[in-house]
Amino acid sequence: MLGRSVDKIYSQDHVIATKKTCLDLSLDGLVLVGSHGTASYAAHLAELLVQGGVETRVIVTPGSIDGDMKNQFIEAAFGFDTACKVYSELIGNIATDGCSSRKYYYFIRLMGRGASHIALECALQTHPDVVLLGEEVAGNKLSLVDIVNQLADVVCARSDSHKDFGVVLLPEGLVAAIPEMATLIQEINGAISGEGSDSVEGVLARLTPWSRALYSFLPSFIQTQLLLERESNGSVQLTQIETERLLAFLVDAELASRKATGRFSGKFAAITHFFGYQARCSPPSNFDCAYAHNLGRAAAALAAGGYNGYMASVRNLKAPFSDWRAGGVPLTAMMKLAGRVAATSSVAAVEEKQGSEAGSGSAERGLPAFVAPAGVDLQGSAYKALQRAAVEWVLNDTYRNPGPIQFSGPTADDRTITLQLEKHDYLGQIQQLQALLDAARDACRPGCPQPVLSVALEGMRSLTNILSIMQADSAGKSPSN
Amino acid sequence: MLGRSVDKIYSQDHVIATKKTCLDLSLDGLVLVGSHGTASYAAHLAELLVQGGVETRVIVTPGSIDGDMKNQFIEAAFGFDTACKVYSELIGNIATDGCSSRKYYYFIRLMGRGASHIALECALQTHPDVVLLGEEVAGNKLSLVDIVNQLADVVCARSDSHKDFGVVLLPEGLVAAIPEMATLIQEINGAISGEGSDSVEGVLARLTPWSRALYSFLPSFIQTQLLLERESNGSVQLTQIETERLLAFLVDAELASRKATGRFSGKFAAITHFFGYQARCSPPSNFDCAYAHNLGRAAAALAAGGYNGYMASVRNLKAPFSDWRAGGVPLTAMMKLAGRVAATSSVAAVEEKQGSEAGSGSAERGLPAFVAPAGVDLQGSAYKALQRAAVEWVLNDTYRNPGPIQFSGPTADDRTITLQLEKHDYLGQIQQLQALLDAARDACRPGCPQPVLSVALEGMRSLTNILSIMQADSAGKSPSN
Repeated sequence: MLGRSVDKIYSQDHVIATKKTCLDLSLDGLVLVGSHGTASYAAHLAELLVQGGVETRVIVTPGSIDGDMKNQFIEAAFGFDTACKVYSELIGNIATDGCSSRKYYYFIRLMGRGASHIALECALQTHPDVVLLGEEVAGNKLSLVDIVNQLADVVCARSDSHKDFGVVLLPEGLVAAIPEMATLIQEINGAISGEGSDSVEGVLARLTPWSRALYSFLPSFIQTQLLLERESNGSVQLTQIETERLLAFLVDAELASRKATGRFSGKFAAITHFFGYQARCSPPSNFDCAYAHNLGRAAAALAAGGYNGYMASVRNLKAPFSDWRAGGVPLTAMMKLAGRVAATSSVAAVEEKQGSEAGSGSAERGLPAFVAPAGVDLQGSAYKALQRAAVEWVLNDTYRNPGPIQFSGPTADDRTITLQLEKHDYLGQIQQLQALLDAARDACRPGCPQPVLSVALEGMRSLTNILSIMQADSAGKSPSN
Repeated sequence: MLGRSVDKIYSQDHVIATKKTCLDLSLDGLVLVGSHGTASYAAHLAELLVQGGVETRVIVTPGSIDGDMKNQFIEAAFGFDTACKVYSELIGNIATDGCSSRKYYYFIRLMGRGASHIALECALQTHPDVVLLGEEVAGNKLSLVDIVNQLADVVCARSDSHKDFGVVLLPEGLVAAIPEMATLIQEINGAISGEGSDSVEGVLARLTPWSRALYSFLPSFIQTQLLLERESNGSVQLTQIETERLLAFLVDAELASRKATGRFSGKFAAITHFFGYQARCSPPSNFDCAYAHNLGRAAAALAAGGYNGYMASVRNLKAPFSDWRAGGVPLTAMMKLAGRVAATSSVAAVEEKQGSEAGSGSAERGLPAFVAPAGVDLQGSAYKALQRAAVEWVLNDTYRNPGPIQFSGPTADDRTITLQLEKHDYLGQIQQLQALLDAARDACRPGCPQPVLSVALEGMRSLTNILSIMQADSAGKSPSN
């Protein structure tokens, strides 16, 4: 275990150095721990090693707190369970404190990059008054003003019940999910040379009038964060934008205006938090320990078995540890072609535009194909459970304080609520289908009655016809999935 | 259990309302949960109820996360154990993350009001590179520049070992412990009318030239926090001053100047945190559950036994729960006269100047006598252990990640390190003395030999003489203790 690398293996130099080390040490396998970014580079590295005659097999294990390294093959990345439990512990404490001292609105921004999985899970764990998800905001094309009005409505409704306190959760990707903010950020990234020599006026002059107006509307601390604090590639550092302060500020202004016109008579005092680094590197939950351990064993088995460019997988994660099923999936099975992202994933699109912090990026510079991050599925069971429950949370103070991670006792092996609610049966369904095909084959062996054969033929012709039409249709939309 | 009150019982109206409720409900006892502020008001309330012919007994249980409600009778307040464990969990995670990603200096400010008990305990738990204690800074009269230089020296020394990362802990009371900052805050409080009508220029004009120069030297976000965000009584809100950002900013400037003159060649990037509300209201540790439960039973027994104006006490807290000893202490035994604070406690002096947030104040408005908060004892075993260990921490990255609070398993009943190290034997020593006096009395009953009696007489005359001189001396310094 070499530790956390500062940067990804993507430059020619990195690849040459990696090749050399693999040869020098005669490595059978190189196991990378990471998310979609790591997986994307790993797939290309595997290819390059084969081309260079190196026999080291490249295997990825899905590890990331963000929760966006999942797909039909991979149910979760390890780290998500632990991070969500630590965040939920803190949110639970704040909610308890908040409804005890009854003085403040807490605006809490949660890590998680472009996707809102952490915010979703933490909301299901802690029952805040409001949770905003980037996918929801992007899907409904909510503007900044819409969001501020929604929040102000909640504050007013709660104030009518003499509750001038509450908890609002938001994901760090929110700011890039708000359409006009995404446009502004994109324009700023385009308007900045990246050489640190741009004046504020120069950058502003290069924006569209609309974005310039939005920029002037924003409070000065956000202006500073948008223009002055940049990543090494010159783009806006999303993690550094204090969306929680922005929303608290704008809600405060909206409420002041409502107060002036007699539509609000309560108090509003906000305290903002960013929960980021304090949950990463927590001692892992039992689930994450068991999961990472089994992924590691699967990775070793894959490398020893000669599989190259695979992601280790452990399925059936909802079940007791003893019922888990280890395996591997070729990375190419979960890759998309670059340039087709926008049509299929708004999260990936946002991240592609943004670039990303070293070590956990998504749409990767210069790669022809990559593993895309998964956003929260707005048709999924976890999101639907949130929608149903959130109606109750907003006025009834049904905060839940799940407490700290336990390593023994009745809750020690608890899974995330998201994992419990989501259906993960893609590969199980494939097995069921195989069994049904086998049964049809068995029923129609030579000697079977003619009527049986006719019905089977008729049925399968019709089915394959439908499938070929569906596949042609979906290929037009997304060639690799 | 009525919940957390928004304000203290100190106005005439509060007292009248309290009297009425006690009479209406024929209460035998009124148990207040709180710290030195609550205890101060409780003592006066007890007196007022007696004067008003109300038979309700007022009892206090020591509860506060800050750790400053302790003295020779009270070993700890409940809540401190839990809060320190949650803070230490988060600091431990950040230290692990920091020395894994090796990119940032984390400046973490911890709650705890004027005293630095939380910072001391968390440092003993997590082994940061640097911990600053307010009592140490005030005791050594360190200036802001001294502190910044010390921190910059640490960054330079670590950089020489290729370590451009680290963890710095500081207490929220630090800013008021730095002599020139305390003066500035005091002058600003004096220069502001409290009616919100003061212009910045008007306030600055009323400061001494020296404080005005210091003010101009401070970064603008601290200027804003000093001048614009005020408590209801007009004084500076210490909790809102981001000392962690101030120090990170000044250290950055100092390192830039050292870099310009070739004395520093590393990198310095700081991330700041304030760990406050997210640890309050955590589900309590086993220790705090057991302690609060026993204090509650002791309080009920005191009220039922007719004791008025007492603090419930449970002693021998280091020992297994079964060896704890419950009792009560008259509040008057731990009170000091107002106006004598400055000479005996710099923490109380700072807090007296500052006023305090509702619900946890210290030197209380208008009371002739009060229970003083305890600062970290710089002669105590816990601080000395810190001094010895801190030398090792600064360069060796011996970070400790204690993990989340456990409710079962081998660490579930762990006490704070401070409690384990401190000596709490005041009442035990009194018992020992009583036993020795009894032994002397027994040895000198009628019939004892003359030489024995002579030696005993001689010895006791000399001893009581010394004691009377010592008592007269200490009465001149502190009449109530």
